[in-house]
Amino acid sequence: MLSSLSSLHEQAKKNIKKRIVIAAAHDENAMEAAFKARQENIIEPILVGDIQKIKDIAQKFNFSLTDIEIINESNVEQCAAVAVKLINDKQADILMKGNLETAILLKAVLNKEYGLRSGDLLSHIALFEVPTYHKIIAVADAAMNIAPDLKDKISIIKNSVNYLRRLGIDKPKVAILAAVETVKDSMNATIDAAIITKMKNCIIDGPLALDNAVSKESAQHKGIISNVAGDADILFAPDIEAANILYKTLIFLAGAKCAAVILGATIPIVLTSRSDSDETKLNSIALAAAAN
Amino acid sequence: MLSSLSSLHEQAKKNIKKRIVIAAAHDENAMEAAFKARQENIIEPILVGDIQKIKDIAQKFNFSLTDIEIINESNVEQCAAVAVKLINDKQADILMKGNLETAILLKAVLNKEYGLRSGDLLSHIALFEVPTYHKIIAVADAAMNIAPDLKDKISIIKNSVNYLRRLGIDKPKVAILAAVETVKDSMNATIDAAIITKMKNCIIDGPLALDNAVSKESAQHKGIISNVAGDADILFAPDIEAANILYKTLIFLAGAKCAAVILGATIPIVLTSRSDSDETKLNSIALAAAAN
Repeated sequence: MLSSLSSLHEQAKKNIKKRIVIAAAHDENAMEAAFKARQENIIEPILVGDIQKIKDIAQKFNFSLTDIEIINESNVEQCAAVAVKLINDKQADILMKGNLETAILLKAVLNKEYGLRSGDLLSHIALFEVPTYHKIIAVADAAMNIAPDLKDKISIIKNSVNYLRRLGIDKPKVAILAAVETVKDSMNATIDAAIITKMKNCIIDGPLALDNAVSKESAQHKGIISNVAGDADILFAPDIEAANILYKTLIFLAGAKCAAVILGATIPIVLTSRSDSDETKLNSIALAAAAN
Repeated sequence: MLSSLSSLHEQAKKNIKKRIVIAAAHDENAMEAAFKARQENIIEPILVGDIQKIKDIAQKFNFSLTDIEIINESNVEQCAAVAVKLINDKQADILMKGNLETAILLKAVLNKEYGLRSGDLLSHIALFEVPTYHKIIAVADAAMNIAPDLKDKISIIKNSVNYLRRLGIDKPKVAILAAVETVKDSMNATIDAAIITKMKNCIIDGPLALDNAVSKESAQHKGIISNVAGDADILFAPDIEAANILYKTLIFLAGAKCAAVILGATIPIVLTSRSDSDETKLNSIALAAAAN
């Protein structure tokens, strides 16, 4: 059980230090997060980007570039390709987005020749430390898959379960969310949920309404008997709107701290955005570095 | 602007006292809420149900039935029909669900002969007092419409805006939620949102991600210039899963207080469920009674 996001930092420090390669590293946000994580002894950065801009940012923020590997490349497509190839050559363990479009980075990741395909679907996972919940809880998929079909849903859950295992949660409890806790013909999310619960490698239940997933009392009110109810580790939402609204509500209205990565490639990918807080960016690097 | 749900109680007390008819009133939950609301001087109940069971409940909870109108009817379909007809005959102002299935109650509401159709779509609205937000915020539609099409969405928003107006919010600010704040071909919710923003009788914007809707800072980060951003009164979610997950997250993880009613009939309908807290049930009656 993970009780807080700070335990990800502890875990990352215990692991052999991971090397994180930043594609288009000439980016204040990415560099700030990476240098903080380096200071914490969580990762070792490799910067692929425009060396003059990298130097300017380092000077502005007073970061020392001594002993840091920098590959000078100003074309962002090339940055992505070089970063991905470094991972393929075992020169780096984690990929991070810098100053380039997500689509450009993912195109390199999915490149058939030198990319990082593992055969699994790419999916987003976010871990939250919510003051009102008794342990870390994950949400999938708030950012990658728009309207996953049944097969995609199973892939997303598989990615999520496997990653939580690599964080030390042996049997993650998965709640397949819907608007109600019974199967209804008219609600496709409930039908998919019923089928998905036949997955074997995790403790899984659904359809569950969110209250049943996070509150034992609420589940008891409804007469729900379930190992997952009130104790979920993973909340799986049926589409990107439901997952994204859940994700944002936790951060902006429930005071949650967050860490997020992209799963399904051969390595975790850190895709923070400008609107993420500094803490989220740092936590996301820790999340990527904490997995065994 | 509504700053708290208690202002609904104040508003309801100022109004001419509304009469609430409970269909199948032989129900501990409904009677408890209605008698509390009566004690608060918010409403006057009319009980349609099995008189012996009503008396038993009254005795158990020590409720006085003196001066309370009771219509003895043990068949639940008949209870629904009688309650609905009382409203049509201007003998009652609000309908409340007692010990019967929601479907049975709504069948009576939608009856073409004696029902309560107004020509509008029935939709659910929930008002929340969230500790982390500066005013009351509403969510639609977390419980009635599963996968509303564009026309339905417009009807739901119209219902919601009109009701907030009746609560004294002249120009409600509506945020049409999606997973992102830009229109994307691949995301139908964003396309509908763009079209819906052409509605004329409210301040409306979308697509907005939830953070843009509730946080000015987050909207500024994204360069969003909008009257709604960071100050939304109504959050419209694209389908029942997204809305219901939002609704439940606010209550169970963000510590929100709640009040909810069904709109679109000639009168507001209170449909509380067993799993609602006593406070939610009472607030919902206040919400129904507070409208002008």
